[in-house]
Amino acid sequence: LRRRAIGRGATRRELWAQLHALDLLVLATPVPAIVQDIARLPARGGPLTIDVGSVKAPIVAAAADVERFVGGHPMAGGERGGIAQASASLLEGRPFVLTPAAKTSRAALQQARRVAVELGARPHVLDALTHDHCVALMSHLPHVLALCLMHEGRSLARELDRDDLPWSLAAGSWRDATRVAASDPALWAEIFAANRSALVPALERLARELSAAATALRGGSTTVVPDAPALARLRARLDRFLPRS
Amino acid sequence: LRRRAIGRGATRRELWAQLHALDLLVLATPVPAIVQDIARLPARGGPLTIDVGSVKAPIVAAAADVERFVGGHPMAGGERGGIAQASASLLEGRPFVLTPAAKTSRAALQQARRVAVELGARPHVLDALTHDHCVALMSHLPHVLALCLMHEGRSLARELDRDDLPWSLAAGSWRDATRVAASDPALWAEIFAANRSALVPALERLARELSAAATALRGGSTTVVPDAPALARLRARLDRFLPRS
Repeated sequence: LRRRAIGRGATRRELWAQLHALDLLVLATPVPAIVQDIARLPARGGPLTIDVGSVKAPIVAAAADVERFVGGHPMAGGERGGIAQASASLLEGRPFVLTPAAKTSRAALQQARRVAVELGARPHVLDALTHDHCVALMSHLPHVLALCLMHEGRSLARELDRDDLPWSLAAGSWRDATRVAASDPALWAEIFAANRSALVPALERLARELSAAATALRGGSTTVVPDAPALARLRARLDRFLPRS
Repeated sequence: LRRRAIGRGATRRELWAQLHALDLLVLATPVPAIVQDIARLPARGGPLTIDVGSVKAPIVAAAADVERFVGGHPMAGGERGGIAQASASLLEGRPFVLTPAAKTSRAALQQARRVAVELGARPHVLDALTHDHCVALMSHLPHVLALCLMHEGRSLARELDRDDLPWSLAAGSWRDATRVAASDPALWAEIFAANRSALVPALERLARELSAAATALRGGSTTVVPDAPALARLRARLDRFLPRS
């Protein structure tokens, strides 16, 4: 209110008392609190309700009976939080995934799309499992790898008894691959746990792929990762589709 | 000569004929050619000889008898090659690893240090095995991971039969971790093969670490990578020691 960022505030109790007077309800709390709030929504009527949690399967499961609920994942944001970081252009050009629940009405989904477009984002309608599968690979897995590479680097420093050496010899690739290891570990532990069912198979598949690379290399093969030339060309083409840093 | 980048050129045959007239010989060819040239060096006398190969154990093994040879790895450069990319400040502030061979004289090592310092680099004297072990973890491993993440992303796109979707939902962490996958695959296949003995155990260790993370997560643990809070603090502190992009 002091910053004039909102026109009016309400306690949680006041909010629920006037639920039917709202046009749009956005649940922007941690996933367990979102699931609890969804349980209080009416099956029919009530405001269009969207959440912004980063894992969608447990949320659409909780909202299975709610016609005016649409799961949401606006994919933007930095490593710092709080009202001081607020930005009206945060979502511009960014993907806003919308995951309908079992009984989400066509009208509710259409309204949710308009909300995303109004914010400058690009709506992607996906089922919750596909969303969770994609973010497991394209966001959560590189995060686990960043922590693993840090762990390996620290072990090497201890083994050599030279705390400066590994970091002095780090390539740009190591620097970039470990960047996100500095983010809030508690927040990420929650995300990993919430997306367990998609992240566990992704970790196992990558572990098998690294074992296979080790076996190929030990056997004298120069094909460490199969089809590397095509993957290199694909990565070069992707540059303009990927988010800017 | 046309660019005045050198004062005088010579064929390989002319060069070997006047070897004893040289002060400094820098072998800057692929590793197999470096190994062949080292075999022609005299055990005593001759010019101070340094190489610039990115894997050192096979090179210092080839130079085991040569008193005036010092293995070198100036750690700088970009993804583009050729004379047009030449820069007098390329090595400024960058590590220049020096790896003595079995009979490298103290005088030769001291001269090699001075060469590195003259170029603006920071000399690090290391044994070849420690160097190869460090670069396996801090450069070659993130490179294999970049290719594996590309491979996983492409498999997901095919599985979903939507060629746009994984890339549309990629996080900045995925973009950064895959950046180097676009570099020359043939060059990297050679580097992986040359550093096989250090890279194979690094790949196997990371595979085990990812399997352990999968097992922990499946068992309901919130500790996916042990000691993540300390690793996050360490990564934040490292920022000023790592190479600039």
